[in-house]
Amino acid sequence: MMAATGRLRLGVVGLGRLGKRHAENLAYRVPGAALVAACSPVEEERAWAREALPEPRLYDDYADLLADRDVDAVWLVTPSSLHAQQIIDALRAGKHVFCEKPLSLDLAECERVLAEAARYPHLQATIGFMRRFDPSYKDAFDKIQSGVIGRPFLVRSQTTDQNDTDGFFVRFAATSGGIFLDCTVHDIDVARWLLGRPRAKRVFAAGAVALHEGLREFGDVDNGVAICEFEDGKLAMFYASRTQAHGNDTHSEVIGTGGALAIGRNPRANRVEIYDATGVRNECTATFFDRFEDAFLYEARAFVDAVGGVGAGARVQAGATLADALEATRIGMALRQSLQSGEAVVL
Amino acid sequence: MMAATGRLRLGVVGLGRLGKRHAENLAYRVPGAALVAACSPVEEERAWAREALPEPRLYDDYADLLADRDVDAVWLVTPSSLHAQQIIDALRAGKHVFCEKPLSLDLAECERVLAEAARYPHLQATIGFMRRFDPSYKDAFDKIQSGVIGRPFLVRSQTTDQNDTDGFFVRFAATSGGIFLDCTVHDIDVARWLLGRPRAKRVFAAGAVALHEGLREFGDVDNGVAICEFEDGKLAMFYASRTQAHGNDTHSEVIGTGGALAIGRNPRANRVEIYDATGVRNECTATFFDRFEDAFLYEARAFVDAVGGVGAGARVQAGATLADALEATRIGMALRQSLQSGEAVVL
Amino acid sequence: MMAATGRLRLGVVGLGRLGKRHAENLAYRVPGAALVAACSPVEEERAWAREALPEPRLYDDYADLLADRDVDAVWLVTPSSLHAQQIIDALRAGKHVFCEKPLSLDLAECERVLAEAARYPHLQATIGFMRRFDPSYKDAFDKIQSGVIGRPFLVRSQTTDQNDTDGFFVRFAATSGGIFLDCTVHDIDVARWLLGRPRAKRVFAAGAVALHEGLREFGDVDNGVAICEFEDGKLAMFYASRTQAHGNDTHSEVIGTGGALAIGRNPRANRVEIYDATGVRNECTATFFDRFEDAFLYEARAFVDAVGGVGAGARVQAGATLADALEATRIGMALRQSLQSGEAVVL
Amino acid sequence: MMAATGRLRLGVVGLGRLGKRHAENLAYRVPGAALVAACSPVEEERAWAREALPEPRLYDDYADLLADRDVDAVWLVTPSSLHAQQIIDALRAGKHVFCEKPLSLDLAECERVLAEAARYPHLQATIGFMRRFDPSYKDAFDKIQSGVIGRPFLVRSQTTDQNDTDGFFVRFAATSGGIFLDCTVHDIDVARWLLGRPRAKRVFAAGAVALHEGLREFGDVDNGVAICEFEDGKLAMFYASRTQAHGNDTHSEVIGTGGALAIGRNPRANRVEIYDATGVRNECTATFFDRFEDAFLYEARAFVDAVGGVGAGARVQAGATLADALEATRIGMALRQSLQSGEAVVL
Repeated sequence: MMAATGRLRLGVVGLGRLGKRHAENLAYRVPGAALVAACSPVEEERAWAREALPEPRLYDDYADLLADRDVDAVWLVTPSSLHAQQIIDALRAGKHVFCEKPLSLDLAECERVLAEAARYPHLQATIGFMRRFDPSYKDAFDKIQSGVIGRPFLVRSQTTDQNDTDGFFVRFAATSGGIFLDCTVHDIDVARWLLGRPRAKRVFAAGAVALHEGLREFGDVDNGVAICEFEDGKLAMFYASRTQAHGNDTHSEVIGTGGALAIGRNPRANRVEIYDATGVRNECTATFFDRFEDAFLYEARAFVDAVGGVGAGARVQAGATLADALEATRIGMALRQSLQSGEAVVL
Repeated sequence: MMAATGRLRLGVVGLGRLGKRHAENLAYRVPGAALVAACSPVEEERAWAREALPEPRLYDDYADLLADRDVDAVWLVTPSSLHAQQIIDALRAGKHVFCEKPLSLDLAECERVLAEAARYPHLQATIGFMRRFDPSYKDAFDKIQSGVIGRPFLVRSQTTDQNDTDGFFVRFAATSGGIFLDCTVHDIDVARWLLGRPRAKRVFAAGAVALHEGLREFGDVDNGVAICEFEDGKLAMFYASRTQAHGNDTHSEVIGTGGALAIGRNPRANRVEIYDATGVRNECTATFFDRFEDAFLYEARAFVDAVGGVGAGARVQAGATLADALEATRIGMALRQSLQSGEAVVL
Repeated sequence: MMAATGRLRLGVVGLGRLGKRHAENLAYRVPGAALVAACSPVEEERAWAREALPEPRLYDDYADLLADRDVDAVWLVTPSSLHAQQIIDALRAGKHVFCEKPLSLDLAECERVLAEAARYPHLQATIGFMRRFDPSYKDAFDKIQSGVIGRPFLVRSQTTDQNDTDGFFVRFAATSGGIFLDCTVHDIDVARWLLGRPRAKRVFAAGAVALHEGLREFGDVDNGVAICEFEDGKLAMFYASRTQAHGNDTHSEVIGTGGALAIGRNPRANRVEIYDATGVRNECTATFFDRFEDAFLYEARAFVDAVGGVGAGARVQAGATLADALEATRIGMALRQSLQSGEAVVL
Repeated sequence: MMAATGRLRLGVVGLGRLGKRHAENLAYRVPGAALVAACSPVEEERAWAREALPEPRLYDDYADLLADRDVDAVWLVTPSSLHAQQIIDALRAGKHVFCEKPLSLDLAECERVLAEAARYPHLQATIGFMRRFDPSYKDAFDKIQSGVIGRPFLVRSQTTDQNDTDGFFVRFAATSGGIFLDCTVHDIDVARWLLGRPRAKRVFAAGAVALHEGLREFGDVDNGVAICEFEDGKLAMFYASRTQAHGNDTHSEVIGTGGALAIGRNPRANRVEIYDATGVRNECTATFFDRFEDAFLYEARAFVDAVGGVGAGARVQAGATLADALEATRIGMALRQSLQSGEAVVL
């Protein structure tokens, strides 16, 4: 199904801020990949693609891109509410599919996608939990696998954004699913990945509106905390925030019976330290993209490598499976329910 | 009531490991203090006192020490179960009293002490939550007071001990009150102190037995996590552990609307860094005493200073009040209840 | 002179370990670049190129590559002793040229290249001091330009390698020019770049053979220290080592009248910290390539961007000029002379 | 010679800012010590002593204090130019003596003290290089002794002060001996102590006047750098500054054949980190006293302990000997000579 050149021919779908970054990676920085098509309903995004990308075929309609027989795989960076159906459509069109998180905010829909995907075992379907591809998270994962910290039993993980005085995410609150489904879902995936993919048994969540009163009408908060109990006595603690002063501070710890690992504890922007009258300081990563720029790139490479290995026989999975994404949504929804009820939620 | 020399005459009660440290501080490092008496039922502890302390009067019976008219204040470093009655007895004997935490593991008993103390408003009664006197915790408190981080609304705090292969705390489990009342009680006090002494509304806790199976019969765990919701939308997250590989790692963070502070995030033993084939590393504080040695000293100085100021009129409080200690016990007991029931507990 | 597609057509010369990395960057990660040719006298390196690169024309003779009219620029990663003549040949063939440091270990030869290059002002000629393109060094440079530390007057900079028990650099000692010309030359360039390109007035150097006795016969050392006085009261201190236990530790500080900046002070391999019985540690970058992988890439992009701007008029310089490289060699040779004489050397 | 109580009876001489701190330590924080006398020609300093110290006998004349038969040891915190003669007078009066650094800025005078002291082998004579007693420096020393870094061969050490806009040290320049004898002398002692007390062979120094032009008339600088070659291929690099923005930043590194140690590399004021819009930062120690408060205390305890052990036979040395102090002055003077001549100085 791949081109004679042996390069995987990709079509990117959605060219917003994050879509553009993915497109550039696929176009210029992923050996084995050829970005041959791009799709956006927005004319100026297509104009950007004409300028910035190496002559992709441009579509304003996803169905047309799926009909392009010279596209082997689609790369979905579209609104969350479209993900589930677009994945199903891609698989039915015989295309491998990468889709940004979340799979869906609706559990039934998640399950529908899994059921459909089961019919196409030869096609790669990956949900974009990019932290798995960050070199530091990956190093931690590898160290755990090789026994450096004994048996891991507790993950503490946070996703916290620099305060956005513009309040974008308040306007976005109606459709974001709330702080736990929008932010913590990454931490949930990290926790399950580092702890060996356990299932959740019980969760509890609480939150506070520190700055953005507009969230109250959506039942949402700008700072949320949670505990998740997994099977086999494994645990996770989560923190999500929209109001940090210092930047995007996304970090995790994993604690085992023989040691612990911290990943990204000080969100250094780079290797510079500044000495002045206020002390010794480092600047911080401003956004998740500053922090995970490399991860997005490695994620793309891993996907292309995994698909490239298909001919060899068994499918290699690159990153989070649809089942992982379903479990992350399931836990995220339970956290939201706990936040709203004030009670622990048993899964 | 104080000696002609103007020095506060103290009697220390209990000369175990921690008692000895307190005694040495009071004897040699606290201007304005004179350690004139010591009490222990254990002969070899009294022998130590004879050797190491500057000629204290020695008692094997607490009642005899209370009868010593040349003792102005007692310093209790005795088993937790004795604290409440010993405080009451000291106050009735007209002595100021410092008592190691906890006040009591029984709420009714806590309240009995508060009621009795209310009758002696001129006497100092302090419970030893020493973190309040650690220079770094104190600096954080002062920074919060001066508005450095805006309005604080979330504390994350942990008390974690290096794994004790000897299992002392397992044998101690029957009377310790469990991990939350033994360890987290410090974090509870820190959270309330840094957040402006809010009352708790609801808590949830969970735990794991990572290494010490013997704890199960006591309904205890060797790793515990918890969330505490306070009034006014304030929050705390706690972690306690008996099983850390790297040392005693007791640290806290406080997050506000304008910034955040971390206290002790890397539990450095000192200012040395070691560069070798394993990387760049610092050693860690091995025990709470290594970490809080200074705090115990400053705590003693603050107590003596506060009592010294009595004559001037209103009583100055040094450290945690009996009411703070009661609230810490109340929250700690709710955490234990939540751990055991699996449900959130409303206070 | 550039291809119709607007991409700069490059030929890489030398495919050793570092040459391969440069080739991969130019082939896959530099927008605007096309790696169209590669040259190596070694058959297995050409075989690697056939496999790993996108169909380059392969040459075993540098003169043939220079005769290729569809090559716009050459990228020299060849032995140091060849650099000077190869640069001259490239310029005479009308090609832009990037050459790995050093320009030459012979001052007269350096000057001959400058004289020749002056005849081709429209051609880019850059020496590969890649630190200038490391994002952290670049950030420090920009901060200095914007006045963050006042007037910079002192640089402390080091290039230290993990001890190589294999002793490669001992065998290399006959031709390396010694530790100052091989390693410190980078620090010299960093110092001059951060301090505003001052000329050196006087230097002093000393050294020790800590582990590699074989260096003595070459008058070389495995650890060297040096001071360089520049015009206008500016200063630099340098340290170079072949014997570090923890990894490649290349870092710099620049001190100004209003503050200071440190770049890379802890040579962290990534964002992971390990907590175990030995303390809290991070692993370190093992080699200069681990440390400067990004810098090599940004260096290539800057070169291609600078050449791309040629048509617009004035030549934009990307990175260190030939004059910078000459000055670095001049200072490095004075350091070697000082090491051997035990006296300060006036330049 | 000591009092019946077994406590060493001390007289402090000089009650300026540092003298007061020493006096308080000796009075209240050194088990085994009794501060029984104090001497100052300044009435208000004696008034302070009357208030702050436990009833010392007060003298305005050093000779009178030496005549006090109930003083076992003197503690000199007087102007540098008086040190040598005061030490000799103390020894002749049969008193142990501790003297703040430097021994003298005149080599012949240093030697005269050593000759005199050789006549009183039973008397302790220590020069106050307090860094040896800082817990972190001490830990590094102990680690070196136990082989943690193999054979140490290079020390890098700095003494840098926060910029004093008041310019005290400019007024002090006429008598300070210059930056190397005033500041670097500490680093010289640290280097020799950590490297096994080698003798210096050759030095080179350079400097800059970054901010304080008034120093030029004294041939002094506000930033100085130096290299010192010792016997046996051991090396040291020094940096001294009067103009740091961030605080007193006194740190050292020692590099060995098997690893390295850094002591105090980030001059953290305490364990607090501040997260705000400028990044993540720690505040710094403002002055040498903030940094070495503990060291002064441990230094006093070590002196008292060492003298206490006299009766047992051989004299135990506490801290730097007179010979160490002589060597530090000898090297410091060579650095000053090199700074002024621009040439390496052979010792």
